[in-house]
Amino acid sequence: MQVSAQTDTANARRRGAAFDEALERLYEPVRGDLEEVGSALRALTHGQPSFIIELLDHVLETTGKRVRPAITLLASRFHPNDGANARTMASAVELLHVATLIHDDTVDDSAFRRGRATISSMWGNNAAVLVGDFVFAASATFVCDTGNIRVVRRFAETIMELSIGELGEMARAHDASLTREEYFRRIYKKTASLFTTAGESGAVLSGAPEDVVDALRSYGYNLGMAFQITDDVLDFEGASEETGKPVGSDLANGVLTLPAIIALERQPEDNPIAALCERPDDRESLRAAVDLIQQPSIIEAAYSVADDFSRKALRSLDRVPPARERDSLAELARYLVRRRG
Amino acid sequence: MQVSAQTDTANARRRGAAFDEALERLYEPVRGDLEEVGSALRALTHGQPSFIIELLDHVLETTGKRVRPAITLLASRFHPNDGANARTMASAVELLHVATLIHDDTVDDSAFRRGRATISSMWGNNAAVLVGDFVFAASATFVCDTGNIRVVRRFAETIMELSIGELGEMARAHDASLTREEYFRRIYKKTASLFTTAGESGAVLSGAPEDVVDALRSYGYNLGMAFQITDDVLDFEGASEETGKPVGSDLANGVLTLPAIIALERQPEDNPIAALCERPDDRESLRAAVDLIQQPSIIEAAYSVADDFSRKALRSLDRVPPARERDSLAELARYLVRRRG
Repeated sequence: MQVSAQTDTANARRRGAAFDEALERLYEPVRGDLEEVGSALRALTHGQPSFIIELLDHVLETTGKRVRPAITLLASRFHPNDGANARTMASAVELLHVATLIHDDTVDDSAFRRGRATISSMWGNNAAVLVGDFVFAASATFVCDTGNIRVVRRFAETIMELSIGELGEMARAHDASLTREEYFRRIYKKTASLFTTAGESGAVLSGAPEDVVDALRSYGYNLGMAFQITDDVLDFEGASEETGKPVGSDLANGVLTLPAIIALERQPEDNPIAALCERPDDRESLRAAVDLIQQPSIIEAAYSVADDFSRKALRSLDRVPPARERDSLAELARYLVRRRG
Repeated sequence: MQVSAQTDTANARRRGAAFDEALERLYEPVRGDLEEVGSALRALTHGQPSFIIELLDHVLETTGKRVRPAITLLASRFHPNDGANARTMASAVELLHVATLIHDDTVDDSAFRRGRATISSMWGNNAAVLVGDFVFAASATFVCDTGNIRVVRRFAETIMELSIGELGEMARAHDASLTREEYFRRIYKKTASLFTTAGESGAVLSGAPEDVVDALRSYGYNLGMAFQITDDVLDFEGASEETGKPVGSDLANGVLTLPAIIALERQPEDNPIAALCERPDDRESLRAAVDLIQQPSIIEAAYSVADDFSRKALRSLDRVPPARERDSLAELARYLVRRRG
């Protein structure tokens, strides 16, 4: 068990390295800014008591893909500005993402995240709750440093949406009546809300006109939706190598995602997913449900919904002035929804 | 066990009713505003999904003493203003307090709070973490509605301090080398920080001059310190009736507070508190430690430190124009640190 988790982690790291190359290319226009964001996050430990330094170092050492801060930085480049507020906001956006990961790991009882042991598995859930609170609050102080109350308020609303999204997922677990529309509302809250804020806030802080702000908000929204759907499909497609989670882990936890909803729409009667919702511990129903969902036509149908959102994200960019930052945003949309299965 | 918890709860309610009478008198100048704060909090559920309404109703139904919003409202009355921002801020301050209670209960595994079952005991720790996040974020949206970035930033810093205070308590559990100064720094973060912000923000939002702001910040700080010390002493003094916790519960959890620190200062050798820190599960050491701390001279010494802070709070009010709101703040300081044992 221990060994297999470590192997998965090693695989995830190798894959991570391959991904990074493509990302580094498209991050090129904001590379310096992204490095400054990294320094700002590391500086968070300055002057803190030693126990919190230890906990924070552990959290911040793990570098993810930095997709969200990159969106904020790229979105800030369509109107002349000195970039300071965008960098501050990008730090806030990344910290907020880190905070949600910490609390999600507590909620999910995850032992590993981004190839490292989680705070909760190392120091207990109690420390994880409080470190998450600290990082949430730290992210808010960064947003305050922009001095822009519109952005601060949008940020606070985003935290509300993130927690409602997660709560909704919990409240509707094992519920086979979940509709596509309800699923879309949930993934907006748990994922696309922060992508929306990442795009919108970069544009607002650059001083861009409202139509450009709206275009980048729409880009963030649609990209976030496409990203989460892709992630949900990957959970049924040999995703274990990448995330360390077993195939079908969402469903095993009672979380119905788009592929399951499509399978239920197509076969409303006598569906093993419905049977699984009735008896969540029945391993045979789980196996039958995963088999059903893994049918190529269902996986394809789910991916094509992700593609629709991705295309809308790309179309939003038509309303943004041409620039290499716009090319990067387009490239990012293609990168995040490409089929990795 | 069940029965005894319920009896404690009933006692707490009876006592609570008695307390309220004194509080209601001193809250008189801001009674209407406090009621509006209550309505604003209840309105938080509007438009939310049904599962979150259920969780929030449960959290907000429980009315505590509303000390913190009362401080904000009273502190806003020393300069002419329409009171709207002070009410918004008072709502934020109370919500932040509620959010910390939710996460503290998760961290402490408490089954009851303010005489009601806790979210974590009813819906599980996972829901409690997320509802806490939601309420934190909701409090931040209220602060944003004041439009005052100085206050928003101070508020975010307060959340950081609250979580560091709790983490520090956890990190230094079972550590008999804790000094008085370290204890003071910790209780500032976990308690007095929010009292400070409650006083300061009310004054700032009223547009009061900086010397009045500073006086009310100092009032909040000293009152918060006095309040927490009193609370820590009460834990050794038949506090069970009031809180439902067993006498010496802090010490049983390895949390050293002022009475324990004084006992260690006075008897540095062969002290049962040090023995307890070495072997946290030794019930005999716990009994001996509680006996030592319950000596009247130690309890008195701890109360007199609380009195010192309380007097400083009262002295701060000398720098505030005379008004019945000033009398209420003075009365509140006397009320919160009076010896209830």
